Amino acid sequence: MPTAELKPWSRQALMTREQALALDAADPLAPLREQFHLPRGDGLIYLDGNSLGLLPRATAARLQQVVVDEWGEGLIGSWNSAGWMAMPTRIGDKIAALLGAGPGELVVADSTSVNLFKLLSAALAIQRQDAPARRVVVSERSNFPTDLYIAQSLCREQGCSLKLVDSPGQIAEALGADTAVLMLTQVNYRSGRLHDMASLNAAAHAAGALTLWDLAHSAGALPVSLNADGADFAVGCGYKFLNGGPGAPAFAWVRPALIDRCVQPLSGWLGHAAPFDFATEYRPATGITRMICGTPPVLALAALECGVDSLLAAEPLGGIAALRAKSLALTRLLITRVAERCAGHGLLLASPDADAQRGSQVSLVFDPTSEACGAAYAVVQALIERGVVGDFRAGSPVGSLAGSLVGSADDRADILRFGVAPLYTRFVDVWDAVEQLAAVLAHGEWRQARHSLRAGVT
Amino acid sequence: MPTAELKPWSRQALMTREQALALDAADPLAPLREQFHLPRGDGLIYLDGNSLGLLPRATAARLQQVVVDEWGEGLIGSWNSAGWMAMPTRIGDKIAALLGAGPGELVVADSTSVNLFKLLSAALAIQRQDAPARRVVVSERSNFPTDLYIAQSLCREQGCSLKLVDSPGQIAEALGADTAVLMLTQVNYRSGRLHDMASLNAAAHAAGALTLWDLAHSAGALPVSLNADGADFAVGCGYKFLNGGPGAPAFAWVRPALIDRCVQPLSGWLGHAAPFDFATEYRPATGITRMICGTPPVLALAALECGVDSLLAAEPLGGIAALRAKSLALTRLLITRVAERCAGHGLLLASPDADAQRGSQVSLVFDPTSEACGAAYAVVQALIERGVVGDFRAGSPVGSLAGSLVGSADDRADILRFGVAPLYTRFVDVWDAVEQLAAVLAHGEWRQARHSLRAGVT
Repeated sequence: MPTAELKPWSRQALMTREQALALDAADPLAPLREQFHLPRGDGLIYLDGNSLGLLPRATAARLQQVVVDEWGEGLIGSWNSAGWMAMPTRIGDKIAALLGAGPGELVVADSTSVNLFKLLSAALAIQRQDAPARRVVVSERSNFPTDLYIAQSLCREQGCSLKLVDSPGQIAEALGADTAVLMLTQVNYRSGRLHDMASLNAAAHAAGALTLWDLAHSAGALPVSLNADGADFAVGCGYKFLNGGPGAPAFAWVRPALIDRCVQPLSGWLGHAAPFDFATEYRPATGITRMICGTPPVLALAALECGVDSLLAAEPLGGIAALRAKSLALTRLLITRVAERCAGHGLLLASPDADAQRGSQVSLVFDPTSEACGAAYAVVQALIERGVVGDFRAGSPVGSLAGSLVGSADDRADILRFGVAPLYTRFVDVWDAVEQLAAVLAHGEWRQARHSLRAGVT
Repeated sequence: MPTAELKPWSRQALMTREQALALDAADPLAPLREQFHLPRGDGLIYLDGNSLGLLPRATAARLQQVVVDEWGEGLIGSWNSAGWMAMPTRIGDKIAALLGAGPGELVVADSTSVNLFKLLSAALAIQRQDAPARRVVVSERSNFPTDLYIAQSLCREQGCSLKLVDSPGQIAEALGADTAVLMLTQVNYRSGRLHDMASLNAAAHAAGALTLWDLAHSAGALPVSLNADGADFAVGCGYKFLNGGPGAPAFAWVRPALIDRCVQPLSGWLGHAAPFDFATEYRPATGITRMICGTPPVLALAALECGVDSLLAAEPLGGIAALRAKSLALTRLLITRVAERCAGHGLLLASPDADAQRGSQVSLVFDPTSEACGAAYAVVQALIERGVVGDFRAGSPVGSLAGSLVGSADDRADILRFGVAPLYTRFVDVWDAVEQLAAVLAHGEWRQARHSLRAGVT
């Protein structure tokens, strides 16, 4: 069982609710919240934008336009006249601007899983040419499962193997003369731990490996500098901090110096150099468009573009750097307030306390000696009944967590996970959410909470 | 260059426009047309539903509901409460009912290209176990390119080869002791030629091969009996006759006796047996859900469901069999009227004249001696200016065509392609479209037609 010690979590001075309100009033990013549909007439505190971002107000109208005007009236002509064919690259360019990448380097297509398959396959093929002895993919056991499943599949097919490390500190030593690719998710979906991309790219390159990053919990939440930090490949998700809607299309990026060498097996017709020649032989398109496979999902792309635009609207206000500063202030406030208001209930921080290592979420677990241990799901349900939406991840390996938690590799803990989305989460939301959490714990409301169906999309 | 002879195309008696109107008035399927948004206030004759189906009226309202209520208000809770997680199988069951397949046998996911990759990979893996000497995929050179590109990629990776035949008559003799999979598109996208699925499945099985069918131009247009006709694998497209919208998700079906043996490389988390256990090792789900990869594209799925429902609405009126009978009557009328009204302009039928071999489209080419030869694109543009939308496919190999056209394997011809969608195409639409075509030819309007950008999604 995990053992733990409740350390003082914060160096920040204690605040009042009025001070939280004052922070919101002084926040130059505050107007960005007006871009969103606020559920229950602004009666819900939503701390799950790291799972599914809020609906931008622009989306519904834009979808009506695409459906009624472009599809209903324009029909097939809209592939050109309404710019449908260009959507994967046009929206790709917008996302690239959020990730330190250039125009023409990133494309929107398929799902994160499918894009991982394309890019990992392309990376392994390059290594097979350049360094055939490199047949190992290094990743973390705590990586999001789909990343591991795709890597398992490709490794099995290509006679490679997957080496999983149990903690971030073991990554560098796992890299060696046999490493083909270092494949990591930058922000861990359970702990919220943030990798230092630049130093890991440097370590991988020093070892002769290529790097593939999953930016699912990074894109739109914190600054990413794909080119400057020396990444080789990246994929990411459209439905979390990019606010693209449930199951939104994903993206794929390749370092420009590598793209011409990339062969990917999902050689669908819209990744062809001249799809409308209807040639019999596949010939990959120049540049990143070779990562497109089938026909672009126009309706989903239109919704994603509205979501991406909601982030680009922050550019005149400081952009991603300003959003990151606010995100850190929000998670710091959450950590501080939980430490103060929930003391005595055995809540432990499962996210890094250090700002530089924390993504845009705070994860908590109950000490095994706590009365509420094992009731994390019920606590999340009780919070939802009080109008605060966080989420829950069952049986997380303690070794994959961080913060003040200590345990052996086999220990498991249930996580309470609270994401902040600096585009729309306010300081007072965090303040009030912790007050509700304190009330749930003080009143033991989790004893009554209904155990409804568990599911959600991380 | 192709040579040709203008044969009498039809055995049907000549008609008047009044008789066409009378056919519509007596058509029990006619009310189904009211399900659709009719472009330009019913001022357009749309004969391109084989490329992109019309917009169902229900779609816009349903998308608003999904966006505003389910996403905007329900947020992550909608994965369960609004049934998002079940959409791939729920809609899959509806499509299965159109294809002679049972519930739980078909799933909606990804694109046609991606699903081809999954199923062809699974089929090759089964043969590798059962009959390792079978390493050839047989298909037609005239197959839709994405099918060939995906097969090329898998064959290269797995040390197999792709054998392409130049005409349907060569398929049976191409099957042999080395054949792993016969991969065909049931209705050719250029000629509209329809394969007899039952006899080709029988021939393939007699030769020890598995069959994989692309139903892009079949699903929703004509009766398919996947189980009764002995098919092994099938994929298909959501945006043509299923009216799912531009880039709609595609589907995948596997014969129930084979599904438990299917290993597919796109092993994403939602094809896992227990995705919310977040286990480290991939374990495929039971049944067809193992063909799911990433997170379901909810908005696109909602639009597709409206399209599929527009077909299911035909069930009380005779269903797909009744739609097929109407489709054949429409294409027969089109053929007859072109022969009568466009005589002297060198138009040749490039689709099969025999009903049993014709899908839901009619393709035409110009005789090389015709003044309009080389002007097919301009003719399509001139028709659009007259409110008739068909489409155009450049440089089609004459060997891939049918009808009264004869030519060597290297000959190429530009196709005029007219699709009929029996859910909404009327007899009078076909009548009027041919009148407009006759006028374009009689007045030589194609000489003035603007050559705007060419593109479209077949």
